[in-house]
Amino acid sequence: MSKAPAAVPDFSLSTDGLLPAIAQDAQSGVVLMLAYMNAESFAETLATGRAVYYSRSRKRLWRKGEESGNFQQVQEILVDCDGDTLLLKVRQEGGAACHTGRVSCFFHQVTPDGVRITSEPIFDPQERYGKHD
Amino acid sequence: MSKAPAAVPDFSLSTDGLLPAIAQDAQSGVVLMLAYMNAESFAETLATGRAVYYSRSRKRLWRKGEESGNFQQVQEILVDCDGDTLLLKVRQEGGAACHTGRVSCFFHQVTPDGVRITSEPIFDPQERYGKHD
Repeated sequence: MSKAPAAVPDFSLSTDGLLPAIAQDAQSGVVLMLAYMNAESFAETLATGRAVYYSRSRKRLWRKGEESGNFQQVQEILVDCDGDTLLLKVRQEGGAACHTGRVSCFFHQVTPDGVRITSEPIFDPQERYGKHD
Repeated sequence: MSKAPAAVPDFSLSTDGLLPAIAQDAQSGVVLMLAYMNAESFAETLATGRAVYYSRSRKRLWRKGEESGNFQQVQEILVDCDGDTLLLKVRQEGGAACHTGRVSCFFHQVTPDGVRITSEPIFDPQERYGKHD
């Protein structure tokens, strides 16, 4: 059974210095996405009130919305009992968190019979992101 | 920008074969916890309809509720756009997902002024788990 964390959040609990951060729509309760934070992105998020993640693919800070304009205004930051996961309650500007133009990144439903797509884009990502693919 | 995942979920995207899995109360929308799944725990979850995780500390399958009786009945399994994160919509038996006796593991609120505890236990974990600490 886990003890109370030494720090909240405790980035030393992760070998790569990254902790998962869940973004949830503060009003609807919809889980929008999961990304990762390092200590620097967390500090900037706390200071600015806008979600800043660490992009594992780009290996740099990722200010959510920097390309799309779909910033996340952070209303509450919660950390779990172990100190190793973050939950951000946010207001998602533009209404869609997913790069596919969907409200939420969680749109594949898995059942014993296969995979079903549960939602459609609310904007055209080609238009929003331009030629970037 | 990410492409559509090759498999949903795609456990090969993780170097250790583990993907984060968010458990959300299907009715209230409360985010209860985050744990990890490997392919085996995912397959058992899909087949049985009860959440099975992989415990990184115990290095074995963790059938949530095996000690406390607080099983999670899985109503829906969703996977994100990249295929590397799971979202389980569950009915949490016993009402509390956290080993501290709280409904949710996310009870530390972090603000620029410090950390605040946002909820209290709904059961006594000493009684529920016995002498196990």
